[in-house]
Amino acid sequence: MGPYCTDWLGEYGCMALAVARPQTTQQVSAVLAACHRTGVPVVPQGGNTGLVGGGVPVAAGAEVLLSLDRMTGVRSFDEDAGVLTVEAGAVLQRVDEMLRSDHGRCMPVDLGAKGSCTVGGIIATAAGGVHAVRWGSLHSSLVGVEAVLADGTVVDGLSSARKRNVGYHWPHLILGSEGTLGVVTAAALRVPPAPEARVVAMLGFADWDGLRRTVRRALGSRGLAETVSAAEYLDAASVDVAVTWGGQRDPLDERYPYTLLLEAAGASQAYCSERMEEVAQGALAAGEAITGAVSASTAQARQMWGLREGVTEALSKRGRAVKLDVSLPLERMAGPQGAVAAARGRLRDQLDPAWLSPGPRGASTLEEGCVAGGWGCDGTDVGGVLACGYGHVGDGNLHLNVSVPSACAADGRPVGAEGDTLRRPPASSSAAAPPPSLAEAAAAARDASVPFVPEWVAKEAGMRGSVSAEHGVGMSKLGYAGLSRGSGEEALMRRLKAALDPTNTLLPGRVLAARGR
Amino acid sequence: MGPYCTDWLGEYGCMALAVARPQTTQQVSAVLAACHRTGVPVVPQGGNTGLVGGGVPVAAGAEVLLSLDRMTGVRSFDEDAGVLTVEAGAVLQRVDEMLRSDHGRCMPVDLGAKGSCTVGGIIATAAGGVHAVRWGSLHSSLVGVEAVLADGTVVDGLSSARKRNVGYHWPHLILGSEGTLGVVTAAALRVPPAPEARVVAMLGFADWDGLRRTVRRALGSRGLAETVSAAEYLDAASVDVAVTWGGQRDPLDERYPYTLLLEAAGASQAYCSERMEEVAQGALAAGEAITGAVSASTAQARQMWGLREGVTEALSKRGRAVKLDVSLPLERMAGPQGAVAAARGRLRDQLDPAWLSPGPRGASTLEEGCVAGGWGCDGTDVGGVLACGYGHVGDGNLHLNVSVPSACAADGRPVGAEGDTLRRPPASSSAAAPPPSLAEAAAAARDASVPFVPEWVAKEAGMRGSVSAEHGVGMSKLGYAGLSRGSGEEALMRRLKAALDPTNTLLPGRVLAARGR
Ligand SMILES: Cc1cc2nc3c(=O)[nH]c(=O)nc-3n(C[C@H](O)[C@H](O)[C@H](O)COP(=O)(O)OP(=O)(O)OC[C@H]3O[C@@H](n4cnc5c(N)ncnc54)[C@H](O)[C@@H]3O)c2cc1C
Ligand SMILES: Cc1cc2nc3c(=O)[nH]c(=O)nc-3n(C[C@H](O)[C@H](O)[C@H](O)COP(=O)(O)OP(=O)(O)OC[C@H]3O[C@@H](n4cnc5c(N)ncnc54)[C@H](O)[C@@H]3O)c2cc1C
Repeated sequence: MGPYCTDWLGEYGCMALAVARPQTTQQVSAVLAACHRTGVPVVPQGGNTGLVGGGVPVAAGAEVLLSLDRMTGVRSFDEDAGVLTVEAGAVLQRVDEMLRSDHGRCMPVDLGAKGSCTVGGIIATAAGGVHAVRWGSLHSSLVGVEAVLADGTVVDGLSSARKRNVGYHWPHLILGSEGTLGVVTAAALRVPPAPEARVVAMLGFADWDGLRRTVRRALGSRGLAETVSAAEYLDAASVDVAVTWGGQRDPLDERYPYTLLLEAAGASQAYCSERMEEVAQGALAAGEAITGAVSASTAQARQMWGLREGVTEALSKRGRAVKLDVSLPLERMAGPQGAVAAARGRLRDQLDPAWLSPGPRGASTLEEGCVAGGWGCDGTDVGGVLACGYGHVGDGNLHLNVSVPSACAADGRPVGAEGDTLRRPPASSSAAAPPPSLAEAAAAARDASVPFVPEWVAKEAGMRGSVSAEHGVGMSKLGYAGLSRGSGEEALMRRLKAALDPTNTLLPGRVLAARGR
Repeated sequence: MGPYCTDWLGEYGCMALAVARPQTTQQVSAVLAACHRTGVPVVPQGGNTGLVGGGVPVAAGAEVLLSLDRMTGVRSFDEDAGVLTVEAGAVLQRVDEMLRSDHGRCMPVDLGAKGSCTVGGIIATAAGGVHAVRWGSLHSSLVGVEAVLADGTVVDGLSSARKRNVGYHWPHLILGSEGTLGVVTAAALRVPPAPEARVVAMLGFADWDGLRRTVRRALGSRGLAETVSAAEYLDAASVDVAVTWGGQRDPLDERYPYTLLLEAAGASQAYCSERMEEVAQGALAAGEAITGAVSASTAQARQMWGLREGVTEALSKRGRAVKLDVSLPLERMAGPQGAVAAARGRLRDQLDPAWLSPGPRGASTLEEGCVAGGWGCDGTDVGGVLACGYGHVGDGNLHLNVSVPSACAADGRPVGAEGDTLRRPPASSSAAAPPPSLAEAAAAARDASVPFVPEWVAKEAGMRGSVSAEHGVGMSKLGYAGLSRGSGEEALMRRLKAALDPTNTLLPGRVLAARGR
C-alpha cells in the first residue's frame, strides 16, 4: 500500500483504509457507491505525480484510495476526427508513443512527469506543461469524459464528436476539479498531428526586459507564429542546479542571468529553421540577447531540453524545495520588479545571512545573484539556500523554487540527515551563527516563502496573476488559493461541490477548505 | 421592442414583458435580482443571431428580455499574454477589427453572423465557425468570465492569467450553457496572432470518399499541418443555391458533386502556398479530386469564401429552410452512406414526387442528384424542395438544410405567399397532384426531416455524432437533443441547473425541457 500513500514530494500521505484498484467503470462505481453509503471518503489517484498533495490519504486509516492504474486501455481512435478515447489510468508517455507510432499524432500535453502521470490525472489537474503555448490548456483538447460521481452514478459523456452542443459542457467542469467533483474513468481527446520537424534555440540574456521583448516577438504573427511549440525560461540559479545536481550540460558558452528556450515545430524542417533563425538573429540584432544557439541536430535539441527539463529532478536531488507555481504578467515574473527578486529579498531578510552567503560561483557578476555558499556534511560548498525561477514563460507561468540543500553536489552524499547539523565550508566568513539542522533550514525557508510569495503575487498582480498556475490546490495551497479567486467564485464553487458531491465523499478538505477553517 | 422579440429565422418570439438594456454589470445584477424576487423569467440576448430560438421570449408578455447590447467596452488588452478582456455585448467583427489594427491579433472565431453576433453570444452558444479546425472550440480560448447568476449574484472570474488552477473552472461550464446558467457580462479570451498570410484552395470531387481522403491528408502532419485554418465543403446543391440565389460566382469551371475549400494561414505567404500546392497537387495526382484552383490573389480567395459563406444567406433568400446542424464521422456525412443522401431518400418517400421532379440543371449527371424542378408563382422553374449539405468538414460538422422555395431566382419575386398556390412549371410531367401552398410545402418538408434526420444521426453514429453540433438546443432542438446525450448526462445537467438557478429564472424551458414534457 506504501507507494500509493505518500505523495511525490514526500510531504503528504498516511495509511489508507484500503486501496481499491478497479479494472472497469462498473467497479469504480461500486467502490464509490459503497463508500458513499458508508460515509467513507475516497481519494482518486492516477500516477501519483501531483505536486500539491491532492492524491493521497491524509486522515490516517480513514480514507479509501481509489487507484486508476489498472484502467489503461485505449477504447478507440477516430482517424478522421483525430480523437482518441482512452481510459483514465493510461500513462501519458505510453499514449503519446502509441499515437506517434500508429497514427502520426501526439498528445497535446507534455510534462516532466510524463513517464508516470496519467490521462485522468492530467485532466483532473488541468495540467499545462511545455506545449500549452501551442495547443492551449487541456480545455482545448477535451472532447468528452466518462466519469463516476461521488454516489456511484456513471455519467457517459464520451462522445468523439468534436462538437456536441446538446446541453452543458460538464466535462470541462470536471477538468481541473482535482478529483473533487467526480472520478474520470475515460476521456476523449482531440490529438494533433505530430510535427514532422522540430527546431530548438537557446538564447542568453543579460536582463529580463530583453528576454521579455524577444518572447513577445517570438509569439507574434511575424515571429515563430503558428510554429511555436515551447517558450521556456531558466534563470542562472536554475541552470546551475540542473548542471551541478542534475548532470545536465549547458549548451551556452557561459552562464547568463536568463536563458530562453524556444521551440518551433511543424511540417517542414526548413521552414521551422528559417523562422527560428529569424527570431534568434532578431533578438541578437536588437541587442536583446547576448548569445544564442539554434539546434542543428536532434542531439543538440535534446541537450537544450535536458537542461530545462532537468531542473525539477535536479532540485529534488539537491535537497528539499519549497515549490511555488504562479502566474504573473511577464514584467512581474523575474527581473528587478519580479517575483524571484522579491523572494530573494525576503529570504535575505528572514534567514540567517550565513545560510545565503555568496559562494564561489560568483553570483555577483549576474544581474541577480542567486547561487550562494552553504554547508556540506564535510564542509563542501553546496550553495546554501537559494531561490530559483524557471518555467513556461510563454504562458506567464513561473515555477519559483526555494531550495535547501541536503546532498553534496560532488558525490551525492547527504549533507545532513534530519536533525544533523551541517558543517560550515572552510571559505565561509561568518563564523558567529551556529550551523542549522536541515530540518531547521527547511522549515525556515518554507516559513519565509509561504505565504509571502502568494501574497506578493496577489497584491502585485491581482487577477492578472494567480497564486497557483498549473499545479492546482490539493492540500498544500488550501491556505492561500483564495487569494486568486475573484469575488463570488468560492461560493459558486461550493454550490457546485454541493450539487455533485453533497456528502463530501470525494477528497473532503482538498481544493475547498473544510467549513470553519 | 420588435427586433429583440423575433429570432433571426423568424420562427420564435413574442412580446416581452419588458426589454432591459443595462450598461453595467451592476445593472444586470439589479435586473436579475428583481426578476428573481418576483418570479419573472429572464431571457438574455446578444446579437440575436442564434439559430435555435433560444434568445427571444416565448411566453407572451411574461418574460423580461435582457439585452447586452449596451455593454460593448474593451476592459483591457494584455499584450504579453495575448489576452483580451471585453464586455459581452461587443460585436464579434468589431472586436476582430480592433485586434487586427491595434494589436496584430484576431478573434479565434469567425462565422457568417460576425457582423451582429456578440462575444457573450458566442460564449453562451459555444459557437464554432470556420476556424475551429485551427484554434479549436471556444474552450481553447476562454481564460475567464464575469457572470451574473440568476439571483443577481455577480461572480468575478475575469482573470487574464492563462493558467489559474485555484479551484473549479466554472467559466467553462457557463460556456455552451446558452444563457441558462448565468448571464455573461464580460470575458477574457486568449487571442491568437493574426496570420500575415493566407492561401485558399477550392477542389472539385466526383465522390465523397475522394474528398474524405484529401481532408484527412490535408489535416495530417504532412499536409497543411500547423497552417490549416479552414476545411469546408459544399455539395452541388449548396453551390447551386449560392450561385443562383446568392449571386455568388463559382470559382470552379463546372459543377461538381462536392467542392472542398481549404485555407492555410500563417506567417509566410510562400510557405502557405507551398503547402497548399502540395495538398492540391496530391489530391489531383491521387485521383481524389477532378479539378482544383489555388488562390493567387486576395480577390480570388474572397471569391472562394464568398461561395461558401454565401450559402446561409442564399438559402434565406430562396425561401424557408429546415436547418439541421449535426456532427458525424466523415463517412456518414455525405456520399452514398451519408446523412444528406438519407435525407433526400426520405424527402422522396414522404413528399409528393412532383415537388421534387428533376429540373433543367441536370442533376442526374451528379453522383447525388439534388437540384430538382418545382413551381414558381408564374410557372418558372425554381428548383423545388431540395436538401443540401455543406459545413465544417474538418470538424465533422454538417449543415443539412431542406429548402422550400418562396422566391423566383430570376427576379426575387415571391413564388407564393402564405396560402397561395404555386404554379407548376410547363416542363413538369406529373399533372395529377394539385399544386401545394407554400405553407403546406414547408410544413411537409419539416415533418419529413424532423425528427427523421436527428434519429438517423443518433442511430447511425451514436456518440460518434451529435444531433446538434454548434448551434445548440434552445427551443427548436428541445425535442431531440436528448438523442445525443449519454446516459446520466441529462440528470447531471439538471443537478447543475438546480444548483445555479434553482428558481428557473433564466430561460425556463430552454435547453432542458420543462419536467413532464
Ligand atoms: C517531475 C514533474 C514535473 C511536472 N511538470 C508539470 C508541468 O509541467 N505542468 C503541470 O501542470 N504539472 C506538472 N507536474 C504536476 C502534475 O500535476 C502531475 O504530473 C499530473 O498532472 C498528475 O497526474 P497523475 O496521474 O500523477 O495524478 P495524481 O498525482 O495521481 O493525482 C493528482 C490529482 O488528480 C486527482 N486524480 C488523479 N486521477 C484522477 C482521476 N482519474 N479522476 C479524478 N481525479 C483524479 C487526484 O485525486 C489528485 O487530486 C509535474 C510533476 C512532476 C513530478
Ligand atoms: C448567418 C449566420 C451564420 C452562423 N454561422 C454559425 C457558425 O458558423 N457557427 C456557429 O456556431 N454558429 C453560427 N451561427 C449561430 C450562432 O449561434 C450565433 O451566430 C452566435 O453564436 C450567437 O451570438 P448572438 O450574440 O447573436 O447571441 P443571441 O442569438 O442573442 O443568443 C444566443 C443564445 O445565447 C444566449 N446569450 C446571448 N448572449 C448572452 C450572454 N451575454 N449571457 C448569457 N447568455 C447569452 C441567449 O439567451 C441565447 O440562448 C450563425 C448564425 C447566422 C445568422
